[in-house]
Amino acid sequence: MATPCSSFSFERLGSCGEARRGRFHTAHGTVDTPIFMPVGTQATVKAMTPATLHALGAQIILANTYHLHMRPGEEIIEALGGLHTFMGWNTPILTDSGGYQAFSLAKLVRISDTGLMFASHIDGSPRLLTPEKAVDIQERLGSDIMMCLDECVAYPSPRKHVEAAVARTTLWAGRCLEARRSDKALFGIVQGGVFPDLRARSAAEISRLPFDGIAVGGLSVGEGHDRMLDVLDATMPCLTAERPRYLMGVGMPHDITEAVARGVDMFDCVLPTRNARNGMLFTWNGKVTLKQARYRRDERPPDEACTCYTCRNFSLAYLRHLYVTREILSAILNTIHNLHFYLELMRKVRHGIEEQNFEALRKHVKELYHD
Amino acid sequence: MATPCSSFSFERLGSCGEARRGRFHTAHGTVDTPIFMPVGTQATVKAMTPATLHALGAQIILANTYHLHMRPGEEIIEALGGLHTFMGWNTPILTDSGGYQAFSLAKLVRISDTGLMFASHIDGSPRLLTPEKAVDIQERLGSDIMMCLDECVAYPSPRKHVEAAVARTTLWAGRCLEARRSDKALFGIVQGGVFPDLRARSAAEISRLPFDGIAVGGLSVGEGHDRMLDVLDATMPCLTAERPRYLMGVGMPHDITEAVARGVDMFDCVLPTRNARNGMLFTWNGKVTLKQARYRRDERPPDEACTCYTCRNFSLAYLRHLYVTREILSAILNTIHNLHFYLELMRKVRHGIEEQNFEALRKHVKELYHD
Repeated sequence: MATPCSSFSFERLGSCGEARRGRFHTAHGTVDTPIFMPVGTQATVKAMTPATLHALGAQIILANTYHLHMRPGEEIIEALGGLHTFMGWNTPILTDSGGYQAFSLAKLVRISDTGLMFASHIDGSPRLLTPEKAVDIQERLGSDIMMCLDECVAYPSPRKHVEAAVARTTLWAGRCLEARRSDKALFGIVQGGVFPDLRARSAAEISRLPFDGIAVGGLSVGEGHDRMLDVLDATMPCLTAERPRYLMGVGMPHDITEAVARGVDMFDCVLPTRNARNGMLFTWNGKVTLKQARYRRDERPPDEACTCYTCRNFSLAYLRHLYVTREILSAILNTIHNLHFYLELMRKVRHGIEEQNFEALRKHVKELYHD
Repeated sequence: MATPCSSFSFERLGSCGEARRGRFHTAHGTVDTPIFMPVGTQATVKAMTPATLHALGAQIILANTYHLHMRPGEEIIEALGGLHTFMGWNTPILTDSGGYQAFSLAKLVRISDTGLMFASHIDGSPRLLTPEKAVDIQERLGSDIMMCLDECVAYPSPRKHVEAAVARTTLWAGRCLEARRSDKALFGIVQGGVFPDLRARSAAEISRLPFDGIAVGGLSVGEGHDRMLDVLDATMPCLTAERPRYLMGVGMPHDITEAVARGVDMFDCVLPTRNARNGMLFTWNGKVTLKQARYRRDERPPDEACTCYTCRNFSLAYLRHLYVTREILSAILNTIHNLHFYLELMRKVRHGIEEQNFEALRKHVKELYHD
């Protein structure tokens, strides 16, 4: 089976141990890896304008197909020129398949080889998401990188259940490839829960298919940092080196550096943006929880070494005040800081790989964030 | 009684009928009049960074003494270097006295010549706001323009009640002047409800005192556009020309242009920012209500002639989507647009006065916004 004609390509530029420095090209521009993708669930990274995201150095964002299918609907976005035009974002966008939200957010009615039957979380209306439909929605959105529909399993799940999900994920992967009409990238997804042999089997099956990249799904669902790394140890050696590897929905800073050390190239996670709205800041001195009374009169910025707009202009006392009074500016300034931290982390990761001193950064981040 | 030494001065640059073009100087810079002041209740103009406000051309903002006294408290703001430093805003700030919120937001316990006894709207704790205390709090905040404590009356109120409030407002005005320690500006406030003779009496009494500017308070409280203009007609001729005149809490675009036509120089209002959060946009074609289904597929900007970031980058369909999904970016983009509209309106007002064609603008705004 030959790789279909795709506008997507990936270059490996260097490595440091298993950690890889790379770059991929899409119809909307080039992205340096390892990369972190801010999450723009409903066609907006919460509290950020596109101008602010660009200024922060975001190269690619993720949007959620489930949410956009529900509101405003892919027909409207397509009619308005696609997701890039709709949300005013002219660099790459990756979309998920919608499956994860159908499992986690909607009321799941039934799953079969056909697809997922679920009830909308907004109006309860019945919906069917098939592999073909998931690709069709993403094509209409105009995504640069589409994800296959996969079957996610909860953690923990019995082996038999996970084994069936692996088989169905492979079945759906082939159907997603068949359904693709455009030259946009399509990534396969590896499942297998926390069973090393099932992960290896799924990785081998998905790797055999002509995807533009391979994602590892079904992690960061409650299994914990150490078990997640065990799964990566079982999975990564089964993936071919010439395609980008994407660890979905991960994670904390030390999750990211440990995964990079195992050869992962791409990440997305709601933590920097969600925690920002909950008053938690990531810094190079560890976490800062703004609700703490200790910051009431603290005139220092969250991180004295940080160059973000928030740290250059505002004190912990002011940020605490905004958080306590539930001001919108709290979400804005905290999100600017946390995304700056994550994007800076990835710049340091890339630089560390280039300079062959990634291990020092990895150790530092682990000390800061691994409880 | 001589005007105390003040860092504040006002220049009249020209006029067009009763409309005045002017400029005032404060310790934090110069402001062109007529001016609109965005409202930054809790030391933030909701959903705006200071950088965005500067880019929009905001020259001065208003902050609410009541809210800042409650949270975080003027002692903390003073210890952190004052309100400008605290909120990262380096151009002028006007503060109100806190009285209006003590009347409207808190549970008012008792009013006497001493001051206002009320219960905090946050924790119910008893508080006393006196004229001296109101000035002291504003001095600690480091406000460029402080407002006197006045007695607001509800609309409608019996004449006897309003007459007593006028007398108490004059009493308190003198005590506020005595209480001032700094060289910051202090404005007096005219009361008098909708009684022309009481307004004239209050205006005369307040004008006799050595304030840096005179405000008209107690309007836009339900009396309606036409009655408000009647009150202005009775009040403005009683105010001296050489000091700036500030109409507090007003208003709609046509309220502003009609008041400018009667000689008002300064305005503040929550309408552009609050309506933005409620999905209502001000445009040069009238109001736009984003929740309307007619905008679902509308790829036009809210106002095709508008040069704001929102109109240059986003469609009505996208803005409607953000509003319907309650995204924070909805508040941000709508606020950018509405503040741009108000600040642009004031630029047009100033230009119209300079060019002696203010009447054309006044007529246009009245047609657009006077129901």
